Amino acid sequence: MKKVEITAKGTNYAATNIGLLNELSQHVFTLAPGIDIPGRVFIGNDLGNTGSEVSFVTTPAGLGGDFLHTHKTNEEVYIVLSGNGQFQVDGEFFDISEGSVVRVSQNGKRAYKNTGNTDLVMICIQTKADSLKDLGITDGVILEEPVKW
Amino acid sequence: MKKVEITAKGTNYAATNIGLLNELSQHVFTLAPGIDIPGRVFIGNDLGNTGSEVSFVTTPAGLGGDFLHTHKTNEEVYIVLSGNGQFQVDGEFFDISEGSVVRVSQNGKRAYKNTGNTDLVMICIQTKADSLKDLGITDGVILEEPVKW
Repeated sequence: MKKVEITAKGTNYAATNIGLLNELSQHVFTLAPGIDIPGRVFIGNDLGNTGSEVSFVTTPAGLGGDFLHTHKTNEEVYIVLSGNGQFQVDGEFFDISEGSVVRVSQNGKRAYKNTGNTDLVMICIQTKADSLKDLGITDGVILEEPVKW
Repeated sequence: MKKVEITAKGTNYAATNIGLLNELSQHVFTLAPGIDIPGRVFIGNDLGNTGSEVSFVTTPAGLGGDFLHTHKTNEEVYIVLSGNGQFQVDGEFFDISEGSVVRVSQNGKRAYKNTGNTDLVMICIQTKADSLKDLGITDGVILEEPVKW
């Protein structure tokens, strides 16, 4: 099992490097005693996230799709980095591939499976539904002080 | 300018495909009249996100790092998909590369630049700071009803 190691940290930030994104099966997430999931990496606790859980999901060819799940209060956004798969929400089906981005509300009954010949690699972002009102760039503040490198 | 087109949509979900992740410079984000930013793609409004803004950032070789910025209320998480760069927060510097994940609190004075010879491709996740208390898998509910494909 490869650990998420913090590589830089300060008052207002923390950073890690989890490795090459097509080699994430070196990480193993222990769901319960005896139930290990290779390729699943959660970084929220290690980085000290307060607004999102971000995880990486590697599903080998021929796998996935074993169960449906919903969420109590969280919205999910899935981003496909590589591979091919099929996704379902509430009994509606659609294909996913590199560049696919999927938002699922907490009540959506969802599942996904790998339908290709290579790993299906995705990022999964969990956030509290209805927690963010101002999308886009309106929250950012560009500073007048010069940037130094 | 390439548009974000919704490819699947239902009561509890929406999906798009923004294209190959090393070709995002085909997208152009208009920051203000006359100020176009190639390679920046925001998907929150199009997908109907309620808990996060998710954007893709492509910074060509030799570019980036022109200004510092903070946020009013949002935490950011950056994920590096490819390329090499340098990141700074509050005057502290660290390198970033494929697999780097960086959390920055709203008050962190941040900037990044491409220090490599290829595009620096990142995902940027904005969420309301302190909005998510339960990280990990505790919010998920695995359903007993069988999954059909």
